[in-house]
Amino acid sequence: MAFHFEIIKKDRSSRARLGRVETNHGSFTTPTFLPVGTQGSVKSLTPEELVEIGVEAILGNTYHLYLRPGHETIARLGGLHTFIHWERPILTDSGGFQIYSLGSLRKISEDGVTFQSHLDGSSHFLTPEKVMEIQTALDSDIAMVLDECVPYPSPFEHVKTAMERTSRWAKRCLQVKRENDPALFAIVQGGIYRDLREESAQTLVEMGFQGYAIGGLSVGEPKPAMLDVLGWTTPLLPENAPRYLMGVGTPEDILDAVMLGMDFFDCVLPTRNARNGTLFTSSGKISIKQAQYAEDRRAVDEKCSCYTCRHYSRAYLRHLYLSKEILSSRLNTIHNLYYYINLLGQIKEAIQEGRLLDFYKSRTSRHGLETEFPAPFQSNGG
Amino acid sequence: MAFHFEIIKKDRSSRARLGRVETNHGSFTTPTFLPVGTQGSVKSLTPEELVEIGVEAILGNTYHLYLRPGHETIARLGGLHTFIHWERPILTDSGGFQIYSLGSLRKISEDGVTFQSHLDGSSHFLTPEKVMEIQTALDSDIAMVLDECVPYPSPFEHVKTAMERTSRWAKRCLQVKRENDPALFAIVQGGIYRDLREESAQTLVEMGFQGYAIGGLSVGEPKPAMLDVLGWTTPLLPENAPRYLMGVGTPEDILDAVMLGMDFFDCVLPTRNARNGTLFTSSGKISIKQAQYAEDRRAVDEKCSCYTCRHYSRAYLRHLYLSKEILSSRLNTIHNLYYYINLLGQIKEAIQEGRLLDFYKSRTSRHGLETEFPAPFQSNGG
Repeated sequence: MAFHFEIIKKDRSSRARLGRVETNHGSFTTPTFLPVGTQGSVKSLTPEELVEIGVEAILGNTYHLYLRPGHETIARLGGLHTFIHWERPILTDSGGFQIYSLGSLRKISEDGVTFQSHLDGSSHFLTPEKVMEIQTALDSDIAMVLDECVPYPSPFEHVKTAMERTSRWAKRCLQVKRENDPALFAIVQGGIYRDLREESAQTLVEMGFQGYAIGGLSVGEPKPAMLDVLGWTTPLLPENAPRYLMGVGTPEDILDAVMLGMDFFDCVLPTRNARNGTLFTSSGKISIKQAQYAEDRRAVDEKCSCYTCRHYSRAYLRHLYLSKEILSSRLNTIHNLYYYINLLGQIKEAIQEGRLLDFYKSRTSRHGLETEFPAPFQSNGG
Repeated sequence: MAFHFEIIKKDRSSRARLGRVETNHGSFTTPTFLPVGTQGSVKSLTPEELVEIGVEAILGNTYHLYLRPGHETIARLGGLHTFIHWERPILTDSGGFQIYSLGSLRKISEDGVTFQSHLDGSSHFLTPEKVMEIQTALDSDIAMVLDECVPYPSPFEHVKTAMERTSRWAKRCLQVKRENDPALFAIVQGGIYRDLREESAQTLVEMGFQGYAIGGLSVGEPKPAMLDVLGWTTPLLPENAPRYLMGVGTPEDILDAVMLGMDFFDCVLPTRNARNGTLFTSSGKISIKQAQYAEDRRAVDEKCSCYTCRHYSRAYLRHLYLSKEILSSRLNTIHNLYYYINLLGQIKEAIQEGRLLDFYKSRTSRHGLETEFPAPFQSNGG
């Protein structure tokens, strides 16, 4: 498996890095945002539209694809890229988070997780080895280890037990990984406890993975707690491996996390918000259903160059939303994803040109946010 | 209003004609199929996709657009073309059929129709003059007169009363039509009664419209009855005006009607079927949800060149449908509309090349249908 990561440039004002990832399905630059293609489709869009938006890699959900249509079916049909007509890199999660979200429908043992399908109630057993087999069958470019997530808040002992099991499971994943399998990323757990996060990171780094994710965030903890965790954890991760903040987040979260040294992001926020009529603009979020837009000829964001903003008025988008037209989800999704991809593009450009701090300050002040750095920010330059 | 229709070629084996329509928003050739853009959107597709499919004109529903967002709003936003980002011709219906479909929620008087909105129960009164005003505000290219539809079956006297009122309403529409208003088409009514259809056609032709529609079909009558009505009516309509069969129909219905001299068609069948997973192919309809397609790598129709058939397997389309993904509606709609537009293209080519009868015979025998002409077919050549 041709997986390679290199750092092109480090920011002097923060821990941010500009990087480049190479895979069998092409390369992309980081920091990057991966739209979520839960069931083999980034909801409402075609691959060509994703490419036009500038998407370089997407995420697929192992849990969903395992249940339907099944990884063996996808393998027989030529793998996930062929199945869904997407030629660029795909990262697959391990299903850990989805199974955690099933609540009482799942039971965890040292060997693996037993759960009932949300589709038909059928019973399934997933182990670290099995999720490796599934992700290999999908022909993923980047696979994730099976991890155990815990709710927020959870007591120290509970979080510790889950973190330690996550490390043992990561080792089992590593042991069955063959040379041509997808690149494998470990997942740092440990809730909001500094010593657990540090122990998790150190244990996983010793094992040696091609990348490191930080999991178990964006599950209800306060924003400063998330930044604290990143602040503690990223210095312990190897410089020359990509770092993936799972399931995060808002544009502000992403910018903060980039400055704390993270490289990959995924989140349903832009796509789910789009379907609910909430649109990101250069001056904040708007809810397109509001009566004030009924005869508003302006684009959602007059500074935006996406397909939606080039051709449609707020008035039409409001009409499509109120009329429950399918095109509403499409046009809104195109706009929101473009907003995210464009934000990441601006971040990359700012790192390249050595002005990320200025970008951060101008953006936060424009959005009326605190312009002071979050406490845990520390520069690469020392 | 620059509306012009000319016949390019007449078929010698039937009443079919190849024609050309010019409007302020461009020209198109007939016979043509107009996809239905009920609420200002051909469900799930963008205008660019319609153009790629080969769609030359679409239909908008006056009833829906009048209720939401309102014709005055659309007029203030620059008209329907600008509002929905569609630059080619638009034909608008008058709302007569939708109001008829409201059943007990509407009441008809000589002056017009009172009805309650299906959206909020609000009360509305539409007259022949008002539907002209609405369609002009929408900046439609081709407007329809307000007509009174009757259910099938209905007693002769009832159908006669509605037909006569439809003629009086058509006259009122004509009287308020100004030079720069949309082209105006009348609607022949009269159920399945030959003398009523003939009287309706003769009365309307005497008034002089830019085109003539045949309404009140595809409301439950047997197929031979529909062909009878077309057979009686088209010889009474002027040669040099387009003829529009409203709300029809299956590919077979359209081919039959073309041979009976009809030029325009609209129907929700291809788009609605698409959303329900029923796809048209060169060897008949298929239901994509069937288990037999679970691992079928083939395109929906291996002879089809649409975007969907070029890039996706039946297996993926089945998966999207079962997963209720929005992309399912899109890909299926692209395919079904392409099928219709392609069928009309084949029909036009066959007329142009003087081999429509051969086309009819080969198509009907391939589909296992009667290859004999329906009784009412008569040639232009006499």
